[in-house]
Amino acid sequence: MKSTALILVMMNVVGSAANAQSAPKAAAVQMPDGAMAATPLLKDYIRRVDFDDIWQRPGLSPRDRSLVTIAIIVAQGRTNEMPFHFDLALRNGLTPRELSGVITQVGFYAGIPFATAAGEVAEQVYKKRGIKPEELSVSDTLLPLDKSADAERANGVNRSVGGFAPDLARYTNDFLFGDVWRRTDLTPRDRSLATIVTLATDDHVAQMTYHLARGKQNGLTAPQMQEVLIQLAFYAGWPRAFSALPAIEKAFAPAPAVGAKKP
Amino acid sequence: MKSTALILVMMNVVGSAANAQSAPKAAAVQMPDGAMAATPLLKDYIRRVDFDDIWQRPGLSPRDRSLVTIAIIVAQGRTNEMPFHFDLALRNGLTPRELSGVITQVGFYAGIPFATAAGEVAEQVYKKRGIKPEELSVSDTLLPLDKSADAERANGVNRSVGGFAPDLARYTNDFLFGDVWRRTDLTPRDRSLATIVTLATDDHVAQMTYHLARGKQNGLTAPQMQEVLIQLAFYAGWPRAFSALPAIEKAFAPAPAVGAKKP
Amino acid sequence: MKSTALILVMMNVVGSAANAQSAPKAAAVQMPDGAMAATPLLKDYIRRVDFDDIWQRPGLSPRDRSLVTIAIIVAQGRTNEMPFHFDLALRNGLTPRELSGVITQVGFYAGIPFATAAGEVAEQVYKKRGIKPEELSVSDTLLPLDKSADAERANGVNRSVGGFAPDLARYTNDFLFGDVWRRTDLTPRDRSLATIVTLATDDHVAQMTYHLARGKQNGLTAPQMQEVLIQLAFYAGWPRAFSALPAIEKAFAPAPAVGAKKP
Repeated sequence: MKSTALILVMMNVVGSAANAQSAPKAAAVQMPDGAMAATPLLKDYIRRVDFDDIWQRPGLSPRDRSLVTIAIIVAQGRTNEMPFHFDLALRNGLTPRELSGVITQVGFYAGIPFATAAGEVAEQVYKKRGIKPEELSVSDTLLPLDKSADAERANGVNRSVGGFAPDLARYTNDFLFGDVWRRTDLTPRDRSLATIVTLATDDHVAQMTYHLARGKQNGLTAPQMQEVLIQLAFYAGWPRAFSALPAIEKAFAPAPAVGAKKP
Repeated sequence: MKSTALILVMMNVVGSAANAQSAPKAAAVQMPDGAMAATPLLKDYIRRVDFDDIWQRPGLSPRDRSLVTIAIIVAQGRTNEMPFHFDLALRNGLTPRELSGVITQVGFYAGIPFATAAGEVAEQVYKKRGIKPEELSVSDTLLPLDKSADAERANGVNRSVGGFAPDLARYTNDFLFGDVWRRTDLTPRDRSLATIVTLATDDHVAQMTYHLARGKQNGLTAPQMQEVLIQLAFYAGWPRAFSALPAIEKAFAPAPAVGAKKP
Repeated sequence: MKSTALILVMMNVVGSAANAQSAPKAAAVQMPDGAMAATPLLKDYIRRVDFDDIWQRPGLSPRDRSLVTIAIIVAQGRTNEMPFHFDLALRNGLTPRELSGVITQVGFYAGIPFATAAGEVAEQVYKKRGIKPEELSVSDTLLPLDKSADAERANGVNRSVGGFAPDLARYTNDFLFGDVWRRTDLTPRDRSLATIVTLATDDHVAQMTYHLARGKQNGLTAPQMQEVLIQLAFYAGWPRAFSALPAIEKAFAPAPAVGAKKP
């Protein structure tokens, strides 16, 4: 059996769903002639299955798909992919301030050294594009806080962390949630998306429950999360997508109808 | 007590087993004079315990040991070790097509960005050795499929993933298992070995069960897996070997004799 | 609300505790003018919350805080942060031999390729500072062994690993614990600290129990471990600190008073 035929069939199925909506197309990707000469089969997969198929799927905007991909490669420390994907993200509509916001947010969830490594690459990309400092600055004014919801969140942190490590609890409440999460470089929805993807990339499944519920409240939807899983499979590896799926399904799947029998 | 004496005793024990078979020897490794000047003790360990002892053990051929090591360092993104180990792998008998096949396979299980980083290094190694493009190309003809076994596998994927993420299930069934796993750049046995090692390196213990059973069917043996564990300890760190051990033991250990009492 | 005010309040609270003791100050950190231009908000956080606040906290000496940070970035493979933090560590009082000892120890727990990558960076740092080879050499004389405690440890390894993988058990007992752990480049307390931090950075929570007990015996204290958690949050990401906390709390928290009721 020829694999080409198989792929064409698959793309056809996927394509029919894509054409049902007039979604924005991902920025065109031209793979240079000599690229990936050492792994021609992988190059073929990336072109056909990744860029010509998955990146064109309508369930997640190209801009969001870039945001997800960037969160993955920053959390992985894959500096080799950053010049290409940072540039693609900007062409797909992510602003420089948002791109730097994703890098910063991933830093707090994967470790600051991953953010500083990505920042060095971003600086080169911004220089080439003539991005000015004022396009990257972030206001000191913080987003308003839902005091009741935040008190509940803080109580959870104080219960689980505050007993043994009260200062870590305070940094978590006052700094991480009281400052970082309230900045305007990212919308709460985008910040949730970057955080969830970082947790999945680092296999922090147990810690996804809270952030999935928060992300849903911040506006993420089930169809978007289905696409996030596909993006995770390709960029963070199949096992990470499969590990993250049960928590995502639990948070985003529609509740079963009342009276429905379990199989 | 002098540590040198201890190591010599240890090597002696290991060596006596080694001499019992006429296994192929690993390619000689000459560590350059100035190498690892900052960590002389580690250099000493790598020479004595790693290259002069572990790499000479007969339970796993040098070619397979290289395949395991490459899967580990590609999944880790350790580009610093790749020029040396890619070259050593080719000297140990892995073909360039197989080396690129391991890189590609690890990509799908650890994340494509790890494969593209490794591919860049491989390209330099291939250039130096004059490897031609036709030595790397992979046929479009796919390996035959055991339809009944694959239907069972696909049913499992559809049950666990297909409910919330039907398109991810389809990519898994049609693309990952229907195409990647059926390519001829790696034998199924080598593909299983690269996959299992990637899962262990990334601590995806829960997902090893299926792939260990598949690897056993594809020809991997208990003595080989015992050596894989030793290689994991040194190259992926002791904790990863210890985490992977229970699943590997469960899949590969001989069943206890009927009537045997548990201690 | 202005975030600056919030941070000042927070620093004030933390600062009052700091001033209560005359602890050694961390070496001054001057961030170059152009540094981190792509992520100005992150740069601001690192200066204000990380260097001017956390690194000045008295619960962990700057030298120990550097040791912890180095173990994290070596286990992460974050070579971009190594020149700065290796240099800072030496200024904070870690000796070159100890720095190389941490790199070596992390290698055995995260994987040797992470140690060799760090060793290459260390070599450049040592060259600039004129560190001589004799400042890095490690004696062949091993620390004495508590034979009864080690026999118990070895029995545990033999039970859990020795059945399926007797040679891995022997390398663990004779080489890892019989040689590496008995070297004099690190005190047992510092070796425990580097090991615990590596396990937390790699999310090997299950394997922390033994090493936390050992670290406590080797002299680590609860207040120090509270600071280790804060350092983990910033450098290895909040989720890893939160994942490690329950095991650390269990090992280091004071036992509840007899007769105390659970809430």
